[in-house]
Amino acid sequence: MIEEKLATFAHAPIAPGPAMEILRLSLLDWCAVGIAGRDEPVARILRDQALDEGGAAQASLIGSDTRVPARAAALVNGTISHALDYDDTHFAHIGHPSVAVMPAALAVAQLTGSSGKALQEAALIGAEASIRVGLWLGRAHYQTGFHQTATAGAFGACLAACRLLSLDAARTIHALGLVSTRASGLKSQFGTMGKPMNAGIAAANGVEAALLAQRGFISAGDAMRQPQGFGPTHHGEGQENALDGLAEAWLFERVSHKLHACCHGLHAMLEALGQVKAGADPGRIEVQTHPRWLSVCNNPAPDTGLEAKFSYRVTAAMRLAGHDTGQPGCFTDALCRDPQIVALRDRVEVTVTEGLSEMQARVVLTHRDGSRQEVFHDLDAPGTLRQRQSRVRAKAVSLLGLARADELWERIGAEAPPDAIAAFLKG
Amino acid sequence: MIEEKLATFAHAPIAPGPAMEILRLSLLDWCAVGIAGRDEPVARILRDQALDEGGAAQASLIGSDTRVPARAAALVNGTISHALDYDDTHFAHIGHPSVAVMPAALAVAQLTGSSGKALQEAALIGAEASIRVGLWLGRAHYQTGFHQTATAGAFGACLAACRLLSLDAARTIHALGLVSTRASGLKSQFGTMGKPMNAGIAAANGVEAALLAQRGFISAGDAMRQPQGFGPTHHGEGQENALDGLAEAWLFERVSHKLHACCHGLHAMLEALGQVKAGADPGRIEVQTHPRWLSVCNNPAPDTGLEAKFSYRVTAAMRLAGHDTGQPGCFTDALCRDPQIVALRDRVEVTVTEGLSEMQARVVLTHRDGSRQEVFHDLDAPGTLRQRQSRVRAKAVSLLGLARADELWERIGAEAPPDAIAAFLKG
Repeated sequence: MIEEKLATFAHAPIAPGPAMEILRLSLLDWCAVGIAGRDEPVARILRDQALDEGGAAQASLIGSDTRVPARAAALVNGTISHALDYDDTHFAHIGHPSVAVMPAALAVAQLTGSSGKALQEAALIGAEASIRVGLWLGRAHYQTGFHQTATAGAFGACLAACRLLSLDAARTIHALGLVSTRASGLKSQFGTMGKPMNAGIAAANGVEAALLAQRGFISAGDAMRQPQGFGPTHHGEGQENALDGLAEAWLFERVSHKLHACCHGLHAMLEALGQVKAGADPGRIEVQTHPRWLSVCNNPAPDTGLEAKFSYRVTAAMRLAGHDTGQPGCFTDALCRDPQIVALRDRVEVTVTEGLSEMQARVVLTHRDGSRQEVFHDLDAPGTLRQRQSRVRAKAVSLLGLARADELWERIGAEAPPDAIAAFLKG
Repeated sequence: MIEEKLATFAHAPIAPGPAMEILRLSLLDWCAVGIAGRDEPVARILRDQALDEGGAAQASLIGSDTRVPARAAALVNGTISHALDYDDTHFAHIGHPSVAVMPAALAVAQLTGSSGKALQEAALIGAEASIRVGLWLGRAHYQTGFHQTATAGAFGACLAACRLLSLDAARTIHALGLVSTRASGLKSQFGTMGKPMNAGIAAANGVEAALLAQRGFISAGDAMRQPQGFGPTHHGEGQENALDGLAEAWLFERVSHKLHACCHGLHAMLEALGQVKAGADPGRIEVQTHPRWLSVCNNPAPDTGLEAKFSYRVTAAMRLAGHDTGQPGCFTDALCRDPQIVALRDRVEVTVTEGLSEMQARVVLTHRDGSRQEVFHDLDAPGTLRQRQSRVRAKAVSLLGLARADELWERIGAEAPPDAIAAFLKG
């Protein structure tokens, strides 16, 4: 029974290992993209609303010195950290684990005065749970229109909060039951402020459900799986094997960190192009990708910076011309009109090739001298831990500056208390 | 387009008439059942959480002197007012309009310092909208497992809040879009605290969406109707004619006020038995009802007061024995063991009869002298406005006492300011 399995998992012991190492990297990454997004319009709207509501000084807000109740902090920080769409992704269930789980874990860890170790362990439990629940719901749930980041994410956020509150299994099940009657989030909000807010809603739902369960709230114990439970009513497939090996195998280890401030569908291509010598000026660039992405990020001639984030042709041109696609600020309307970019863009052809996975891309360049170069990348082979650390740290440096990024990374490594991590969020 | 129609309806002028008269009755009823439920376990849990979170003193809580932010007040009051399951019902879409809409309207009216007239008009707009959205979603939505009170209710709560905030059509559509990505609530929570909380979640979602839209939040404008919008993803039927005659015909007028503190499926029978002379001691009591109710409220021999609220046999016995089924406190475990009740109960036979609607019941009594008496009631023929007022006022008197019930009714009739109505809620 999924509810019981998750409730047991909530308090599983966690040994040091790759999963915890990757969790730390995701925590650094989450802080960095959250802080970088603090002045986005949706960030201001959510933060201003929370500050006007005020309340007990329980947890920190991104972009403010003022603390607010934990539920409000989770709502605001979840939204802000997804505002740039620059946070991590797990391709197994196509969700963004950190933006739903980290804000919930951090807010409840601050509320409870938990240790840094407890925060990190709870975040790992929550992130892994959100991926597992996403797999349990399956592709049908996603294809129907649900935003797994938000729906599966709310269960993960809840489990992280339950662990930090030391709720027993019975209360954890009541918390999951309460999440079952309110988890939500639709993909039809993509392209609006509703997308980042879906993450915030998930985080807030998880926190509120756990806090109410702590006070004795009673919900239906089979509210995820029963015929009128969350899964069946939300087009879930009920893939029971999605929970196999919980607390032994960590799917979270394969989370993918965005190193380019644009649609994740472009990343395999951009990584492949990273193997091309700077200053190359090929006469023809053929991008081979998975058909799924053609309806997502194949804007052939974007006019705006936002549209450019969904364009194979423009981002390939940027990469070849030496632009730093890791900088959110480099995607501008002016860039779309830059003659060098336009000239390169017009030499890019996007094609679909059999045998490539959603996480793979191949680029075939034909140089002016007639030579042919082929580069390939698979996001599912992200390199060694050291390589991943080095690249995510470089991203944090580019977003936060060297001194702050290094200090934050050091505190995370030292399992500094939640307040010491949250101190960075004000930006 | 449903979003545009609702946004226009949000600001429709409202003429005095039966709809407003019934709205006032529902406001009285909502206050009375909310106050009566203030000490229920779920009421304490929600209220304590909100008081611990604290924040700006914007709106009143049922059962407290302390004000909290409007969103929190809507959450708590929506939950508490549904805790006794004694609030009004609209059978057209099988939902409870007041528990989602009234708390949202009252909280935002207090926040904005609106007039009493504005509060009542906004509540009517919200309640009518929730019924219309419920009909637009259709029975498939309900049968799949969604709790219309909560799902349709969130849209109604939102529209009431938008009207009080004077949002223009564009912002109202953004608010509805935000509700579309978070409206939730499952029937699988029935029998737990999740059921009343579904109403509170709906009220809070409506308030928060409207407040964020006021600040400039942008959502998808077609988020209710589009293929991955709320309707299609939530098994909605998309009955466009559900919106016909908006602002001209008021479906809300046919709302049904509970006059017995038990399942609404028992009410037609109890009303029919009201025609039987007090002290009657028939040898046989045949209750004829609609088959839908047999799986809902036909517990033949309940052991607990809560179970008795779902028992044709025991409530029929109570009514014949002269118990006041309008008093929530009369449903006790001891009652289930009372020899007189058990003896009467054992003479009740529940049958299904062709041709009865869900709102109708017939009782055939065979008296000791061999005479046969047949009584019938149809909840859909609720009597004149004066009769309805008289009975709902009597219910309020039994829950609040004569002086308070009369004073509250007087204030509602005089369109007293929201704060003057909310002053009663502390109980």
